[in-house]
Amino acid sequence: MGRWEPGAAGRLREAAMALYTERGYDGTTVAEIADRAGVTARTFFRHFADKREVLFAGSEMLEHQMVKALREAPPTATPMEAVVAGVLASAEFFDDIRREYSRRRAAVIASTPELRERELIKMASLTSGLTKALLDRGVDQDVAALAAETGVAVFRVSFERWIAAPDDVPITDVIRSTLKTLAELTA
Amino acid sequence: MGRWEPGAAGRLREAAMALYTERGYDGTTVAEIADRAGVTARTFFRHFADKREVLFAGSEMLEHQMVKALREAPPTATPMEAVVAGVLASAEFFDDIRREYSRRRAAVIASTPELRERELIKMASLTSGLTKALLDRGVDQDVAALAAETGVAVFRVSFERWIAAPDDVPITDVIRSTLKTLAELTA
Repeated sequence: MGRWEPGAAGRLREAAMALYTERGYDGTTVAEIADRAGVTARTFFRHFADKREVLFAGSEMLEHQMVKALREAPPTATPMEAVVAGVLASAEFFDDIRREYSRRRAAVIASTPELRERELIKMASLTSGLTKALLDRGVDQDVAALAAETGVAVFRVSFERWIAAPDDVPITDVIRSTLKTLAELTA
Repeated sequence: MGRWEPGAAGRLREAAMALYTERGYDGTTVAEIADRAGVTARTFFRHFADKREVLFAGSEMLEHQMVKALREAPPTATPMEAVVAGVLASAEFFDDIRREYSRRRAAVIASTPELRERELIKMASLTSGLTKALLDRGVDQDVAALAAETGVAVFRVSFERWIAAPDDVPITDVIRSTLKTLAELTA
């Protein structure tokens, strides 16, 4: 994902998403995506390993961003405050420009078991990344694992709410509201 | 998994686990498992679809048990209290007799990417099952999703702590301690 780039990668992503929505993920080939984007298959493979990675190449950047924000939280931050800083950093990805793409991506993933599994793996990787960053801050293993799992739960629920929300609601508002619900639930 | 049965299914499970630990999951065949358990391959396939399902056949029963306990929580229970009732019901599976098997199973799963993915899918199914049961109690969609995700996070962390704990610690104690940590984290 990353920033919405105007170059070949951005055009390939738009073309892939349009085709996945029109014909389904299974019914779309790399050649068709390249053709729709006006580039060669060779150019496609310079940017993405395969048609699945068009949808997931950004997940590593998202994880990197969230882990970085957690690491940069002040040393005085509690484990959960540090995790929340990480979760809020997802807003750098999920801005208004990305909302419609995110909606369509979520619909494609929901409709394809292989992609749902891939998304679960990416979320597990995010949990591990956040846990490791907490351990590096000296947080106890059990607390780190729980805080990271909880943070990813908040992120997942917030993301689902955000793509279902009206267009002017920023994801940070949804995350803060989800955190408030969590505090009420667990009080 | 289910109760620790003395019959062919139980022997097949023990044989499979011994072989997975000795030779690795990838290096073990159904024929070898059946042979070790003293039954025919035909008997193996009466109990399990393939060598992976020896490890996962119990996951559906676990989900069933946890969802049932959530559904049976008193109508006055808050969403999180109902989820906690579900999570605590995992103790009917994870008793002292199952601890050593659970430890070995976790080690086999951790060492095999295919099995780690399968475990993620089972946990996602558990989250969906708990969410649906909360919706049926009239809980709001966003609250239900968050409570279920949080409950599964508590379960996962508690399970990891339980298999690492000394042999006389019941999983219910670990779950209660994890819930206490969660309340402190999110306060």
